[in-house]
Amino acid sequence: MINKKKIVIIGASGYTGLELLKIVLVHESLEASLLTSRTYAGRKVSEIFPSLSITAKNNIRFEEKPNGRKIDNSDAVFLCLPPGESMVFLKNNLMDYKGIIIDVGSDFRIEDPHDYSKWYNKEHQLKDKLKGFVYGLPEFNGRIISKTRLIANPGCYPTSVLMGVLPILSAGLEIDKNIIVDSKSGVTGAGRKLSQDYLFGNLNDNFYAYKPLMHRHTGEMETQIKKIMKEDISISFTPHLLPVDRGIFSSIYIKAGDDLDQNDIDNIFKSFAERNPFINYLYGKVPRIKDVVGNNDCNIGAFLDSRTNIIKVFTVIDNLIKGAAGQAIQNLNIALGMKEDEGLNSPGIF
Amino acid sequence: MINKKKIVIIGASGYTGLELLKIVLVHESLEASLLTSRTYAGRKVSEIFPSLSITAKNNIRFEEKPNGRKIDNSDAVFLCLPPGESMVFLKNNLMDYKGIIIDVGSDFRIEDPHDYSKWYNKEHQLKDKLKGFVYGLPEFNGRIISKTRLIANPGCYPTSVLMGVLPILSAGLEIDKNIIVDSKSGVTGAGRKLSQDYLFGNLNDNFYAYKPLMHRHTGEMETQIKKIMKEDISISFTPHLLPVDRGIFSSIYIKAGDDLDQNDIDNIFKSFAERNPFINYLYGKVPRIKDVVGNNDCNIGAFLDSRTNIIKVFTVIDNLIKGAAGQAIQNLNIALGMKEDEGLNSPGIF
Amino acid sequence: MINKKKIVIIGASGYTGLELLKIVLVHESLEASLLTSRTYAGRKVSEIFPSLSITAKNNIRFEEKPNGRKIDNSDAVFLCLPPGESMVFLKNNLMDYKGIIIDVGSDFRIEDPHDYSKWYNKEHQLKDKLKGFVYGLPEFNGRIISKTRLIANPGCYPTSVLMGVLPILSAGLEIDKNIIVDSKSGVTGAGRKLSQDYLFGNLNDNFYAYKPLMHRHTGEMETQIKKIMKEDISISFTPHLLPVDRGIFSSIYIKAGDDLDQNDIDNIFKSFAERNPFINYLYGKVPRIKDVVGNNDCNIGAFLDSRTNIIKVFTVIDNLIKGAAGQAIQNLNIALGMKEDEGLNSPGIF
Amino acid sequence: MINKKKIVIIGASGYTGLELLKIVLVHESLEASLLTSRTYAGRKVSEIFPSLSITAKNNIRFEEKPNGRKIDNSDAVFLCLPPGESMVFLKNNLMDYKGIIIDVGSDFRIEDPHDYSKWYNKEHQLKDKLKGFVYGLPEFNGRIISKTRLIANPGCYPTSVLMGVLPILSAGLEIDKNIIVDSKSGVTGAGRKLSQDYLFGNLNDNFYAYKPLMHRHTGEMETQIKKIMKEDISISFTPHLLPVDRGIFSSIYIKAGDDLDQNDIDNIFKSFAERNPFINYLYGKVPRIKDVVGNNDCNIGAFLDSRTNIIKVFTVIDNLIKGAAGQAIQNLNIALGMKEDEGLNSPGIF
Repeated sequence: MINKKKIVIIGASGYTGLELLKIVLVHESLEASLLTSRTYAGRKVSEIFPSLSITAKNNIRFEEKPNGRKIDNSDAVFLCLPPGESMVFLKNNLMDYKGIIIDVGSDFRIEDPHDYSKWYNKEHQLKDKLKGFVYGLPEFNGRIISKTRLIANPGCYPTSVLMGVLPILSAGLEIDKNIIVDSKSGVTGAGRKLSQDYLFGNLNDNFYAYKPLMHRHTGEMETQIKKIMKEDISISFTPHLLPVDRGIFSSIYIKAGDDLDQNDIDNIFKSFAERNPFINYLYGKVPRIKDVVGNNDCNIGAFLDSRTNIIKVFTVIDNLIKGAAGQAIQNLNIALGMKEDEGLNSPGIF
Repeated sequence: MINKKKIVIIGASGYTGLELLKIVLVHESLEASLLTSRTYAGRKVSEIFPSLSITAKNNIRFEEKPNGRKIDNSDAVFLCLPPGESMVFLKNNLMDYKGIIIDVGSDFRIEDPHDYSKWYNKEHQLKDKLKGFVYGLPEFNGRIISKTRLIANPGCYPTSVLMGVLPILSAGLEIDKNIIVDSKSGVTGAGRKLSQDYLFGNLNDNFYAYKPLMHRHTGEMETQIKKIMKEDISISFTPHLLPVDRGIFSSIYIKAGDDLDQNDIDNIFKSFAERNPFINYLYGKVPRIKDVVGNNDCNIGAFLDSRTNIIKVFTVIDNLIKGAAGQAIQNLNIALGMKEDEGLNSPGIF
Repeated sequence: MINKKKIVIIGASGYTGLELLKIVLVHESLEASLLTSRTYAGRKVSEIFPSLSITAKNNIRFEEKPNGRKIDNSDAVFLCLPPGESMVFLKNNLMDYKGIIIDVGSDFRIEDPHDYSKWYNKEHQLKDKLKGFVYGLPEFNGRIISKTRLIANPGCYPTSVLMGVLPILSAGLEIDKNIIVDSKSGVTGAGRKLSQDYLFGNLNDNFYAYKPLMHRHTGEMETQIKKIMKEDISISFTPHLLPVDRGIFSSIYIKAGDDLDQNDIDNIFKSFAERNPFINYLYGKVPRIKDVVGNNDCNIGAFLDSRTNIIKVFTVIDNLIKGAAGQAIQNLNIALGMKEDEGLNSPGIF
Repeated sequence: MINKKKIVIIGASGYTGLELLKIVLVHESLEASLLTSRTYAGRKVSEIFPSLSITAKNNIRFEEKPNGRKIDNSDAVFLCLPPGESMVFLKNNLMDYKGIIIDVGSDFRIEDPHDYSKWYNKEHQLKDKLKGFVYGLPEFNGRIISKTRLIANPGCYPTSVLMGVLPILSAGLEIDKNIIVDSKSGVTGAGRKLSQDYLFGNLNDNFYAYKPLMHRHTGEMETQIKKIMKEDISISFTPHLLPVDRGIFSSIYIKAGDDLDQNDIDNIFKSFAERNPFINYLYGKVPRIKDVVGNNDCNIGAFLDSRTNIIKVFTVIDNLIKGAAGQAIQNLNIALGMKEDEGLNSPGIF
């Protein structure tokens, strides 16, 4: 038996925390040593979430207090906390921690504290830590991820959008500096919030946009494009809510110049897919949400509308896996020097 | 008892034909005198479609042959036929017809036969009739509809898009000549086609774009914008398939100049809604598909993204009602000189 | 213009209250004179529920106080209140009311106060009124409904079950005194309760039974079978929750004797359907929920399993219409001496 | 690297075949050596089913011909063929095969050829082989499964029903000899048949029973109860179709004697769950389909209705896993002398 790395999940009973636990359970080199949950402290995981019946035999439970000793003895801590809470937890519990910290929340994705305030409407509480975090997008930041122990795991929408936009920018195509993004997400993206809006009676058979102005993920996308590509691109981003549990479909509209053809587009994404284990490029086909539900893939289709010189890029991910827990494990794998896809080879559910 | 107008529906057993029948049944001034259906000829409507049990008492049946005498004695004929079949039917059966003809199909929506060939990949068979048809968009063509007896009923996507685009153009705002439209439709938009793609096991929990290039409705939109507004606007249109039965949500992205504010947008749509019985403008709110399922409304929300000067217009309609049968009745009401909303005052189902 | 009867709806913003309003809006002999809602008092109906945009032109609003004068001047009051609240409202506001009172809630469905306490776990507050209420099941109590002004509108499950059981009992078939009923309901049956259980993320793709013992509707069914048929029948009732908005499907299993054949069953239900405008019997076919969504029908299929002598009766209704608001209007029509189906001839939505 | 057992899947592109492949891909002791598919012969698995992108790196393809050499060199063959085709395939290709044969189809589940004809309306073609097959229900036939190489994998409905019925019978409770079973299944249970009935537009928001008389699985249940328990029990079985992709919920109604209490029921199922790795008993709780989607569990709730002496047993399984592919692997594990749960420890998807 190999020596497994010990994992702590803070906020383990939310959608993302549970998804992390599920991956850890099938990952040969990881084991969960501490799962915290305010709501279910002391309860068995399998009792609250019967779909995790396999945790019953080891009697895995949620704990309330972030047990200091268990944290100190762990190899990595995942923070799955609401906006603004990761930084507080980090400040109170992890200032001397030696392992890897992955913030699956949103506190360390925007490096500039001024920008952070603009998009999150509050002051950042650990401004001097902001620069230390690496944005955990392995397809573009793999090298620096492998050398860090502080990782800001990307948001679900930004992941789906950057996978479509960055390859185009990397290729040096001349494009309009404003990109229009129309994203559609399953409802697990909103967590388990109790609101009339998320009742079955409201969402079933329904569809609509929300936060049409100033969604926080816009700031994250613009910041990271700037940081990774050194380009000022503005994103007109509109999220929509789909009557499905999981999955994001992003439709990205990029105005390009005249001298482009479909081959150029195909080559860009073909090459992107060849370099990365979880990227699949579908020549001449549109990706479908159902093809990535349950796996860590990002599937991409791209089309040049030569009538209008608009490049249409379509990407799909599972918001809880490639858009959250799967990508977090992918980052951890890289940071620990393991194979990028370890524990992430499950096929999709459908 | 008033003298009811006699209505013929050719192709009455498809989604649109049935929806027309349902409106005629509650419309005080109309009655169905002939319903044709190749598939169900001779069968009782209530036997094939139990939700129409109210047709049982009058023993309403589908007939096969387009009975000439019944057609001649009717006041209006609705053609609910697949692309290319309306013109053939008209040629064979309606050349001397004296009543009102409403093509709910797609054969008379593009006036120029050359453009028609480009978008439909076939030669038009009644080229000299094309100019005679009025595009049945009552909110913009009401006056000419009231004077015609040949009406081309708009497509579902174009209806949802033109309601968002034409008010902006009418107001004379300076905008970019290319507009990006991302539309999402329920599956009844595709009719009852038997295909793996439309199986529950494929669509449930799924979402994707289709025909990302050259969807025929693009041609219809551009043609009608040109005809109604005398402007050359190109539309980058992408349709997507939603896992819901009914409803279209169109997200329309229009690049505008600097000197605009939200008030300007609000005033444009407020005034548009005040002039038209089925248009509702939702200040500061995004419309939802479920609010229009089962009624003839088009609900609109509009937002100025001042960071990027993009106007985001969101429209929702029920694709089978305002996007097809309801609008067809609205057109007939106008053409017959009746109240525009007669028979169309049902509340939505939800 | 005929003189319309004035209708008051107490609790008008719940699912049932709204559905009542929707029927009143299309009913030629009724008009709403007062709609109360604690939650939305003072607000326009169309603003809260955009699908009711047609109420905007008359500026229809919810009011808070049960305005005494408006009540006194009305012809009928519908009580759409949670269990236990109708009797309190009646006691405080309607003791001298001269019009028709229809309790769409559950306070007057079980005549014996002792039985009421057993099933509802509380003391009844108007015991002497209990006997005065007529159980509003028009297919069996039509004659007495026409002579009363106090009507207890049936529960949704009991409606769906009694339509399958009572015709069998009326025919005098020898059957086992215990009947097994497995019912499945759409989520609007639970109202708009805010609970983790009713979130989209929980119900979508899910299915389960609930309250497998002692659901209150069991008492209502047994009481009414006893009252209408003078027979002691026990019901083993199990409700289940379907991932759909509307509709109830009840599977009723009745053990019969040896000397029965399918013809006997067919004749019983054929005759039942012929006598009643909203009952449809489907020979040899199973009814489907979607065929009754949006109309006041109850569709029935019935099969004799001759291997085991079990009669299987399947019934479907729209829980909000035949199971609540539609049946309430049907009762009012009868009590007012109007046609039973006035205002109830809408076709289904699908 | 251990020496993996070689697996052949005949009919690998159907729902069950694919699900088998997905388990084999994560099973440490198995590898797929031949996948046949008439529809997709020669095509890459990942190209047809993008959710299986992980097969791309090994370039796994469907083949058409059941390659004799590959079959001979394999350790086990799974037959995933429509009713009547497994026996033909076996006759033509596997008469001398030395490995383990698991018929995931329905040809060897009813031992008596006369009974087979009655339920399947055709003559069996390998009558002398019928007795040789062991019914692969590990919870009851584990010992004989471990000694056979011919396994008839149970149907999805029978699995869900026998898990609820057999423990009661094993405990020797006195019960009525007729049991009523009301089962509800997701649509993958019907495979990928192209039919109006399975279109999204028909199933979404819908629910209904089908084949209310003489569903073939009834014969399988009765046969196996008789064989395993030596008791003549008749089952009144009614399958229903749920608007979900995966999962079966069976509601089982058993009439018992007077002298029973809830404790007796609890003890029976508690003990059943303790002996079997995939059985979970939920004290006082009703199981939910979503808790077993994606895993090999069977969750059970059981309630004594003491008013009527009806035991209500509710079971849930994923029809494609515990109801098909998962159980087939569980059987293979046992037959090969491996751990019963190897490769089957995935948590559910939700």
